[in-house]
Amino acid sequence: MSSPVAPVTLAELQEPVRSELERVQRDLRRIIEADFQLIRDVNSHLLQMQGKLFRPTIMLLADQATGSATDHAVTLAAVVELIHLATLVHDDSVDHSVLRRGMPTINSLFSHQISVIMGDYLYSRAVIELVRLNQFEALRVLSRVTNEMTVGEMRQLLAHDPLSFSEEQYDLLIRSKTASLLAGAAELGALKAPALQRAAVQRFGEALGMAFQIVDDLLDYTADAAMLGKPSGSDLREHKVTLPLIHALPRMSDAERRGVAALLRSAEPNEGQIAEVIGAVAHVGGLDYARERAQRLGQQADAELDCLPPSPARDALRASITYVLDRRS
Amino acid sequence: MSSPVAPVTLAELQEPVRSELERVQRDLRRIIEADFQLIRDVNSHLLQMQGKLFRPTIMLLADQATGSATDHAVTLAAVVELIHLATLVHDDSVDHSVLRRGMPTINSLFSHQISVIMGDYLYSRAVIELVRLNQFEALRVLSRVTNEMTVGEMRQLLAHDPLSFSEEQYDLLIRSKTASLLAGAAELGALKAPALQRAAVQRFGEALGMAFQIVDDLLDYTADAAMLGKPSGSDLREHKVTLPLIHALPRMSDAERRGVAALLRSAEPNEGQIAEVIGAVAHVGGLDYARERAQRLGQQADAELDCLPPSPARDALRASITYVLDRRS
Repeated sequence: MSSPVAPVTLAELQEPVRSELERVQRDLRRIIEADFQLIRDVNSHLLQMQGKLFRPTIMLLADQATGSATDHAVTLAAVVELIHLATLVHDDSVDHSVLRRGMPTINSLFSHQISVIMGDYLYSRAVIELVRLNQFEALRVLSRVTNEMTVGEMRQLLAHDPLSFSEEQYDLLIRSKTASLLAGAAELGALKAPALQRAAVQRFGEALGMAFQIVDDLLDYTADAAMLGKPSGSDLREHKVTLPLIHALPRMSDAERRGVAALLRSAEPNEGQIAEVIGAVAHVGGLDYARERAQRLGQQADAELDCLPPSPARDALRASITYVLDRRS
Repeated sequence: MSSPVAPVTLAELQEPVRSELERVQRDLRRIIEADFQLIRDVNSHLLQMQGKLFRPTIMLLADQATGSATDHAVTLAAVVELIHLATLVHDDSVDHSVLRRGMPTINSLFSHQISVIMGDYLYSRAVIELVRLNQFEALRVLSRVTNEMTVGEMRQLLAHDPLSFSEEQYDLLIRSKTASLLAGAAELGALKAPALQRAAVQRFGEALGMAFQIVDDLLDYTADAAMLGKPSGSDLREHKVTLPLIHALPRMSDAERRGVAALLRSAEPNEGQIAEVIGAVAHVGGLDYARERAQRLGQQADAELDCLPPSPARDALRASITYVLDRRS
């Protein structure tokens, strides 16, 4: 991989599209605007919670790196972020999550009801905006992605039994839940590129997205609560089975496996149980294996970019892989 | 009004579009198909719960009455029903409803989480289908409608304080929550009709939809539990303020008003409280007033149809007004 050794900051990789990203913020605000006070209140909290615009960044870099000059690129990038936000609002509601990026979720600050309705509000606004701009190819990509994400959420609901949840199913889960939107974002930046480039950029996004989710799941085993903005081990606490545990389970001793079973049976596992399972997963190589898989996916993503001409935007797409793999929170 | 005196049955008004409605059923099944077992299970329950295809009926009758020969009319009608279903799934989840048409809701039979995800699944399938058929004008109508319905749901959340909830706000609520989809369904049947007809048919659907919701709200005061498939008085029990109460409140005695206030303060009002408030609403004319408003809306809807040429389909649209107004369950 041609990635630099020094850690990549988000600001660095966003450099080639900095001015566009500022316009994305403004456009997002415009698209979700409402004259109904309760919706304005939720919107303003959402915009505060808003993250790093990672998906719009990938979309705009793909646009630049393929030389596409996509129509309405900034608005498409805003719509990608909007769909991401709509998904988070419903996910937090489905998961009964209390915090997101260290801030109260919509379901905890307002209500569960408002979360369900607001997710629908945001998603329908995204569709309205794409129709308004006659962006039907984008709509084709994003409606398929949105549908895939719902199937991913369904898979997530079934991901609580490690004995019946294989690495293959985990791959299907993270592909649909996380990678599909990053793949779609990348593809949107290459709508006007030659078909081979468009397909390569889409696969880049998919591999990047899968690596992203694996790293996220790893961080749940390794990051401390303060850095992550949520308690470490929370997936185990919620009985979510992810790659480190899937890989570790058949390699554990009987006693360790009994510890896992006890944790998954317990409605509120205690800190000791969680620390014990994390320790067992680590010592049989579950964390190393997940790290290696993320690395391999990063290499795949990197290779997909070889078909693009050299440019600062392509470098930034390469740097985004390092950024995802090196993420510590 | 030129409606017959004898009660109109749904079968009668569906007669001109009977064969299309059978194809709507099949098409709906095709559009929501999934290879994921949990989604198939929910789908099959949804199709059993499915109602009378009233919205597809209005769409197909509007198509026939305007002589539009709308492209993919049957599929558009199926998509209208699909959006209706998606909305019901989320509404039942938001309202924590246990029964719908006498059958367990998705949230009660499966889970609240599955309801949220399935609503998103169904809605994104609707968008995918419209994009697949290049039905962008239909998408323009239906994405606007879907967004209006979410605003309607937000209004519903605030409709619990009769002192601050006016008839004007009630009108906004039922227009966005219920009438928008019927207006959109009617409009979809007139996409290829002259602009004036399209607008008239859209207004027909809106007036019909408002009448529909007022009658629904009235039935909560008048129908018995067995007929409605849900207990009568359930809106009051859930502190939902509808037109009969809005009209009645300023006309009540102080004692009666205190009874209303007590009911709305009580987390679980008893049958006696509910019967008392229903009695008070009735005797100061709240039910009569709501009935009159529904009748007036029915007359408006009827007048909008004057611009269409005489046909069995136009007769059936007229009959749909009588059907809505005479509904007993």
